[in-house]
Amino acid sequence: MKIACYPGSFDPFTNGHIDIVMRSLKLFDKLYIIVAENSTKSGHYLFTTDERIQMIKEVFKDEKRIEVIKGDGLTAYQAKKLNCLAIIRGLRMVSDYEYEVQYSSINQYLAKDVDMIFLMSRKEFSFISSSRVKEIYAYDGDVSALVPEAVYSAMIKKRENRNEK
Amino acid sequence: MKIACYPGSFDPFTNGHIDIVMRSLKLFDKLYIIVAENSTKSGHYLFTTDERIQMIKEVFKDEKRIEVIKGDGLTAYQAKKLNCLAIIRGLRMVSDYEYEVQYSSINQYLAKDVDMIFLMSRKEFSFISSSRVKEIYAYDGDVSALVPEAVYSAMIKKRENRNEK
Amino acid sequence: MKIACYPGSFDPFTNGHIDIVMRSLKLFDKLYIIVAENSTKSGHYLFTTDERIQMIKEVFKDEKRIEVIKGDGLTAYQAKKLNCLAIIRGLRMVSDYEYEVQYSSINQYLAKDVDMIFLMSRKEFSFISSSRVKEIYAYDGDVSALVPEAVYSAMIKKRENRNEK
Amino acid sequence: MKIACYPGSFDPFTNGHIDIVMRSLKLFDKLYIIVAENSTKSGHYLFTTDERIQMIKEVFKDEKRIEVIKGDGLTAYQAKKLNCLAIIRGLRMVSDYEYEVQYSSINQYLAKDVDMIFLMSRKEFSFISSSRVKEIYAYDGDVSALVPEAVYSAMIKKRENRNEK
Amino acid sequence: MKIACYPGSFDPFTNGHIDIVMRSLKLFDKLYIIVAENSTKSGHYLFTTDERIQMIKEVFKDEKRIEVIKGDGLTAYQAKKLNCLAIIRGLRMVSDYEYEVQYSSINQYLAKDVDMIFLMSRKEFSFISSSRVKEIYAYDGDVSALVPEAVYSAMIKKRENRNEK
Amino acid sequence: MKIACYPGSFDPFTNGHIDIVMRSLKLFDKLYIIVAENSTKSGHYLFTTDERIQMIKEVFKDEKRIEVIKGDGLTAYQAKKLNCLAIIRGLRMVSDYEYEVQYSSINQYLAKDVDMIFLMSRKEFSFISSSRVKEIYAYDGDVSALVPEAVYSAMIKKRENRNEK
Repeated sequence: MKIACYPGSFDPFTNGHIDIVMRSLKLFDKLYIIVAENSTKSGHYLFTTDERIQMIKEVFKDEKRIEVIKGDGLTAYQAKKLNCLAIIRGLRMVSDYEYEVQYSSINQYLAKDVDMIFLMSRKEFSFISSSRVKEIYAYDGDVSALVPEAVYSAMIKKRENRNEK
Repeated sequence: MKIACYPGSFDPFTNGHIDIVMRSLKLFDKLYIIVAENSTKSGHYLFTTDERIQMIKEVFKDEKRIEVIKGDGLTAYQAKKLNCLAIIRGLRMVSDYEYEVQYSSINQYLAKDVDMIFLMSRKEFSFISSSRVKEIYAYDGDVSALVPEAVYSAMIKKRENRNEK
Repeated sequence: MKIACYPGSFDPFTNGHIDIVMRSLKLFDKLYIIVAENSTKSGHYLFTTDERIQMIKEVFKDEKRIEVIKGDGLTAYQAKKLNCLAIIRGLRMVSDYEYEVQYSSINQYLAKDVDMIFLMSRKEFSFISSSRVKEIYAYDGDVSALVPEAVYSAMIKKRENRNEK
Repeated sequence: MKIACYPGSFDPFTNGHIDIVMRSLKLFDKLYIIVAENSTKSGHYLFTTDERIQMIKEVFKDEKRIEVIKGDGLTAYQAKKLNCLAIIRGLRMVSDYEYEVQYSSINQYLAKDVDMIFLMSRKEFSFISSSRVKEIYAYDGDVSALVPEAVYSAMIKKRENRNEK
Repeated sequence: MKIACYPGSFDPFTNGHIDIVMRSLKLFDKLYIIVAENSTKSGHYLFTTDERIQMIKEVFKDEKRIEVIKGDGLTAYQAKKLNCLAIIRGLRMVSDYEYEVQYSSINQYLAKDVDMIFLMSRKEFSFISSSRVKEIYAYDGDVSALVPEAVYSAMIKKRENRNEK
Repeated sequence: MKIACYPGSFDPFTNGHIDIVMRSLKLFDKLYIIVAENSTKSGHYLFTTDERIQMIKEVFKDEKRIEVIKGDGLTAYQAKKLNCLAIIRGLRMVSDYEYEVQYSSINQYLAKDVDMIFLMSRKEFSFISSSRVKEIYAYDGDVSALVPEAVYSAMIKKRENRNEK
């Protein structure tokens, strides 16, 4: 069985992420979606790790081959423990690319057997990063076309709570 | 069975290409190496398409899961006919990357079902492009550490023939 | 009256070029489309300068504010003679961008009064360059969705002539 | 009347910004300079939004066609409300460029009718970013050649106040 | 005597930094390693400026031509006071490069007589940045092959202290 | 004695090249300017190798520490034979940079003892490449501010000869 993982902070999970997941499922038999905690930046998170995991589970609730789990230490080590052949990454921009070149060399140093494979964002998703979605959301812009239904309703609910305060 | 293809002009096939092939074999059950003809540039080729195909066959003669074939029309169409799930590409530099983004969008337009996946060159191979190998060879530099044995001996033979003339 | 020009080799003129023209028309009162001759590369041209001019005229035959003319010497000098406030350029990729930075500095050196303004290709057109269109066409791929009708029928006619020979 | 806007945080407004404004005035009949609040980062601001607006008003006090206003929500929406044909952006570096490609796609999604146009920084201004100016200022370096007079004297006054404390 | 300086925050000093230092010593007669304080970011530092200076002194204790000193104000001014012909910088990535282009122009503005020279990271060190080292360390990954012995033992000691608390 | 070399095709030698040479002379005691032959591209050269060597000699006729010589085989090997500590390269653009990263790794493979050092083009020269100069010259534009006097008069003479034919 060919297993891969797709790590990220996914705050929030976007339609661009869904695209990468669906394409990965054609290439692999099983896919772990690893939701990174990244405790140092937690102040800037829109959703907690647990909220993010719940939302992504909801999005893929009918897809048996996907498992959504919490990040645990260095991704390279976690991927190895999960018997992953590859870590999947989406590429959007040249600056992404450079970071990934470095990340790729580090992972090779940390875990030689786990490869990294890159998928290019479809052009219709290439401008949808989690940061941009949060920016538009912060200014009350419409993000309904950028994120899945489960994420959108959670964002709306959060906005209502925020405005009530 | 998960099939992929790895297209290129491979003039000549380098140790960097071998690395991409070996890593691809871990991800897929069968791999087509597609040697592009590229007739318009043929004047600058070191080896003919047939010579290149023979050399690559020699390199992988013990690997049953690899088939080395000639390029035939647009890669996206050929990959679809061969039932490939993915076209594999190696990434070395940012400028490669940009070309590949464009290529990726075109392939999506031409053949929606065939995805493209990218592997980063290992840092020890990242400076070995076919063009650089030919450049060093043209100035009688030593390329023995950059290409497989079968390619190296063919290059030496060609150089001897050239010098005799 | 605010005048601008849009220079290029346009071999062939694509739907991406149409997009840049239509957006430029919102910003300026009159637009010159300057078709560069570029005699040194003429061997690789698909259409002659006159053919290209005719095709673009056909595409915009109902738009009074557009004039399609032949390139004459350095664009900066020609733009100045035509009383253009600006030279318009479409940007697709980072590598485009770098060339344009250089081009921009040269034009400032040659003609201080003519500015250059840049429009980003819409994401749906960003992969459609003239070179890619010619590549797909060379391998008998379908380009009907990439170029305007007038260009497409000229390409088909040229292909038939080529195949008859 | 052709209207455009030029948004930024302008903390502080530099000679490079002046250059972009003066060139924009040749292309458009009226220009809004929109000073972004960006409340989340306010801790790192040198000047408050109001101080920045006052300084820019001072710089352009003789230019009737310029209006300096406060940012209000998403720029794309604000630009639309102001009947702007275009949002103007200065480009300095490749990494600017990439961010702007994304920004450009988002704005197209948010407000289809407002285009974005890009001007390249003149080479004499290309190294003058607000961040670099603040860095030099923080170490008591001389910034008098990098910012307009009104900004320079405000910076000197702020430094004196800081040193007195 | 030809003098140069090599400024950085070096938090921590890596094997990649050693490589740049050793290569610089072939080009110059004396080298100052300038350890920047960067007070604004001090919260995120792993080691204090003094700790970093001590560690680098330890690494080069047998090399008479190296002096390790604390950063003092703008590097361009400090380099000039130290009679340096050049400021040395290591280049790893395209994004480094862009920042350095800007930095280079600013230094030319601040101190015309001090040049900047750039050395490319050897490919075996190109993925070792201080940030990546800290990231791996934060997740208890093995960094022994990435930093010199003196740094490694200080990191281990710090980790033990951290874990005891 | 610290020796370096500065290789290039220099067709023609520009004011940007002069700047790199003058700055290199501050860092090294002796400088070889190596004029590459590059026989394969000779069709596109404006000046022959010998003409280019003569012109550069003329430019630096009063500088004893410069020697202008013809390229001979791989630069890394030639630099080693000349006892150079370093090969000097000017950097203008990100795309230059990428090529140089590759070139740098190849040189390290070919001749470990010869380092490469990079100088950034001053912003006033960053748009002056030999190719741009030739382009402007081809269209009868004014290049007098871009190249040294000796090169300019040779270009004018060549143009007159060309026009007479």
